[in-house]
Amino acid sequence: MPPVRSSAHNPAHAARDDSATWLERELARRRSVVESALEHWLPAEDEPPARLHEAMRYAVLGGGKRLRPILVLAAAEACGGSPEAALPAAAAVEFVHCYSLVHDDLPSMDDDDLRRGRPTCHRAYGEALAILAGDALLTLAFDLLASQAPDKGLGAVLVGELAQAAGHRGMVAGQVTDILSEGTEPSAELIDYIHRHKTAALFRAAARLGGLAVTANPKRLQALTTYGERLGLAFQIADDILDVTSSPTELGKATRKDLGRGKLTYPGLVGLPRARQAADRLAEEAVASVQEFGERGRLLVELARFAVTRKS
Amino acid sequence: MPPVRSSAHNPAHAARDDSATWLERELARRRSVVESALEHWLPAEDEPPARLHEAMRYAVLGGGKRLRPILVLAAAEACGGSPEAALPAAAAVEFVHCYSLVHDDLPSMDDDDLRRGRPTCHRAYGEALAILAGDALLTLAFDLLASQAPDKGLGAVLVGELAQAAGHRGMVAGQVTDILSEGTEPSAELIDYIHRHKTAALFRAAARLGGLAVTANPKRLQALTTYGERLGLAFQIADDILDVTSSPTELGKATRKDLGRGKLTYPGLVGLPRARQAADRLAEEAVASVQEFGERGRLLVELARFAVTRKS
Repeated sequence: MPPVRSSAHNPAHAARDDSATWLERELARRRSVVESALEHWLPAEDEPPARLHEAMRYAVLGGGKRLRPILVLAAAEACGGSPEAALPAAAAVEFVHCYSLVHDDLPSMDDDDLRRGRPTCHRAYGEALAILAGDALLTLAFDLLASQAPDKGLGAVLVGELAQAAGHRGMVAGQVTDILSEGTEPSAELIDYIHRHKTAALFRAAARLGGLAVTANPKRLQALTTYGERLGLAFQIADDILDVTSSPTELGKATRKDLGRGKLTYPGLVGLPRARQAADRLAEEAVASVQEFGERGRLLVELARFAVTRKS
Repeated sequence: MPPVRSSAHNPAHAARDDSATWLERELARRRSVVESALEHWLPAEDEPPARLHEAMRYAVLGGGKRLRPILVLAAAEACGGSPEAALPAAAAVEFVHCYSLVHDDLPSMDDDDLRRGRPTCHRAYGEALAILAGDALLTLAFDLLASQAPDKGLGAVLVGELAQAAGHRGMVAGQVTDILSEGTEPSAELIDYIHRHKTAALFRAAARLGGLAVTANPKRLQALTTYGERLGLAFQIADDILDVTSSPTELGKATRKDLGRGKLTYPGLVGLPRARQAADRLAEEAVASVQEFGERGRLLVELARFAVTRKS
C-alpha cells in the first residue's frame, strides 16, 4: 500500500489561511495520495494484454477531481481514523466511478467524444476495449476491497456496500432510467430518482465506506450517510447547471448537451435561479449533518460548499 | 435462500443405472436447484426500473446447461459439505457467466444474434440495456457472495476468488486477447492462453468456490483447482469442435462462425482428430485429479467426461 503523507500544516501560513486556499491545499494533498494509490493498484501498462491495461489506465489516470475518493479519506479522518485504512476503499470508489464514465460515454449510451479534455476511452481504444476495460475496473474494485481490508470480515462489508451502490438498485438503475427518460415529460420526482441513483448512491457509499473502514459507530455512520446523499444531490444539480453555464474548455467535456439530447435536468425543470437555490440548500443540509464531527469534519464541510461553487 | 432438495436416490432403479442416465438424473436435480436459486436472487421483473430487471432475467433465465453452478455444488459435495452452503457461490458464478455472454455477444465484440436458441440480449433489449444488464449481473454476483456467506470472513475470500477469475488477469484478459488475435497466425501457445483465461479461469474458480464454501482442506482445494482448470480447457476445445461439427438447431447459436471470423481455435490449428484427442486427454486428467474423493467425487468424474462427449 502506498504511504499516506501526514498533514504538512505550516503555522506560519495559518494567519492568511482563508477557506478557499485551505481547501485547495487540503484537496491537493489528498489528491496526490489518491493518485499514488490508483497508480499502485492499477496493472502496469506493459503487463499482457497490454492494450487492455493501457485502456484501464487511460480511463482512470490523467485528470479528474478525485472528489469521491477524497470524500472516502475525509470521512475516515472525520471519524478520527487513519486515512491509510480507507485508501483501498478510496481507490475502489474511483475505479467504479471511472468504469461508469467509460460505459456511460459509449455510442449506444451518451455517445460522448470528450472526457477530462481528452478523447473518451472508446474514441481512443475502440468500443470493445472500452467495454472490457470498464468491466475490468468494476471487477478490480471488488477485488481490492476483498483483498486489502485489514480483516476479511470488514472486506465483505465494504464489498456489499459498494455493490449495493453500483448495482441494479443503485447507479445502474439511475443510468437506465436516465437513458429511458430522454425526451419524456420532466418531473421533479423522476429527476430526483435519477440523481439519487446515478450520482448520490456513489457519494453516499463513499462517505459510508470511509466510516466503515475505520469502524465508525452507528451514529457517525448515519451522519455520513445523510451527508453523502445530500452532497451527491447537490453535486449533480451543480453539474447540470455547469452544463448550461460553462464552456467545453472549462469542463473538459462537451457542454449544453443535456438540452440537445432531451435529458431531464433540474435547471431544465425549474430554471437556473431555483436550481442554484436547491443545490445550495442541499449543500447546507450536508454541512449541518456533520456538525457533530467538529474541527475534524472541516474538510467535509468545505467539500460540500465547494461542490456547489466549483467552476468545473 | 431456496431449499436444496435432498437426493432422491431410488434403490429399485440402481440395477439399470448406467453412467449416462445416472448423470442425466443428477444434473437435472441440481439444475432445478440452481434455477430456483437464480430466480430467488434475481430482481423481480416488475421492480423498477422494470426494463433493466427484465433484461437481467432474460440474460440469465430460459436455458443454459448450468454446468458452472452445478460444478460449484458438485465440488462442495465431493468435499463432504452441504450444497446449500455453496448455493450463493453457484448463483454468483452463473451471473458472471451470463454477464460475460451478454457483453461478448455485443456488436462491437462477437456480434452474435442468437444465444440459447433466442435473440441475444442486445437484439432483444438494445445495446445500452444489454451493457447495463451485464454490468448489473457482474455487480450482483459480488453482492451475493459478500452478503450471503455464512460468515463475512468467508465472503471476502469468495469475492476475491471470483474477482480474480473474472477480471483483467482472468476472463477479461482472455476476451481481449481473443478479439485482438482474430485473423492473426495461430499458435498453440496463444490458443492455450485464450482458453485458460476466457474459459478455464471461471471453471477453476467454480470448482474452488465449491470447496472454499465448505472450508475444504488445502489438499482437496488443490485437487479441485487442477480439476477445474483441466475441465475448463477440455470444455473449450469441445466447444470449438461443436462449432465445426454441429448445427445451429442443436447448439441454439450460430455455428461455423469461428472460421468465418478468423478466430483462433484448437481444431483450426491441429485438425479435428487431434483436437478430440486433446480434449479427451484433458478430461481424463481432470478425472485423475479427483480420484481421492472416491464415490463422493463421482459427479465430478462424470461431468468431466460429459464435457467432451456432449452434443450441444
